[in-house]
Amino acid sequence: MKVKVGISNRHVHLKQSDLDILFGKNLTIKNKINQPGQFASNETVTIKTDKSEINNVRVLGPVRNYTQIEISKTDAYKLGLNPPVRTSGDLEDSEVVTIIGPKGSIKTNGCIIADRHLHITYQDKERYNMPDKILVKIGGIKPGVVEVNVKASEEAYFEIHLDTDDANAFLLKNDDEVEIM
Amino acid sequence: MKVKVGISNRHVHLKQSDLDILFGKNLTIKNKINQPGQFASNETVTIKTDKSEINNVRVLGPVRNYTQIEISKTDAYKLGLNPPVRTSGDLEDSEVVTIIGPKGSIKTNGCIIADRHLHITYQDKERYNMPDKILVKIGGIKPGVVEVNVKASEEAYFEIHLDTDDANAFLLKNDDEVEIM
Repeated sequence: MKVKVGISNRHVHLKQSDLDILFGKNLTIKNKINQPGQFASNETVTIKTDKSEINNVRVLGPVRNYTQIEISKTDAYKLGLNPPVRTSGDLEDSEVVTIIGPKGSIKTNGCIIADRHLHITYQDKERYNMPDKILVKIGGIKPGVVEVNVKASEEAYFEIHLDTDDANAFLLKNDDEVEIM
Repeated sequence: MKVKVGISNRHVHLKQSDLDILFGKNLTIKNKINQPGQFASNETVTIKTDKSEINNVRVLGPVRNYTQIEISKTDAYKLGLNPPVRTSGDLEDSEVVTIIGPKGSIKTNGCIIADRHLHITYQDKERYNMPDKILVKIGGIKPGVVEVNVKASEEAYFEIHLDTDDANAFLLKNDDEVEIM
């Protein structure tokens, strides 16, 4: 079965109280993304640690119940962090960073490396008899196979999310097709 | 069969005439690397393009018959380049960059993304009946399989060379073990 990949660059999700401190206003929509109800906002922040900082990190909306910073391992080396690989919302042992916005800054945990995951509806997961982990074949000049977690939800746009390290290792671009084995 | 990985960060090989322009002196050994006769030098350069630049890029020695700049896809995005994936020394269609040293600078082609490769002696390649491409299984929290080119030579230290994008995608460190399938 073929499926398209979406490449996740580093980004931030914010809870309302952190959004208030950083921006003092609500998020504004830059463009919708494939997952239902989700969007890239016009707002960006700086992520700072004792070692370094990364500017222009996009905030994704809408606000969530938790603040989460998703970076790549490459970013983690630059920032001097060792974040765990986690599914969204699982912030146990996540790393602490300072987030700087135009109106204020916060120091918060919540920094993770996102796991490789497939978005799928509960209905389709059952229909395709999909296990909780799948192997996905990637073609091209630097081919291979990666293990991907299956993340089912009520509403979902069927696609695999990989971070920029995975994308760059396999020379993948947004909307490239890969194959579920 | 298990084999260790060596992670190649971005680096430069120089021909003598380019070394003369950039440094006006011979390379000095910082530390030997695993491949016979090869070393990391104390010398570093800046790689520059119209879009951006990367400082502190290590020069590996000894000098070669060609100048070659090996970067990752992540580096390539930063520099605004689209280098081909190539085996060392195959510089057809390679990208052009400016290399800046303490004594001078050169504008040269030779910028590539190195292919994933296994170093092995001709003797061992024959003994193990090794094909020209192998599949290599990587464990850990973000597991998978990658295709690797087998690069045989008279003298070789048995190890797989991956770049930092591959390493970071699979959370690999220098000397981690992977498995030839």
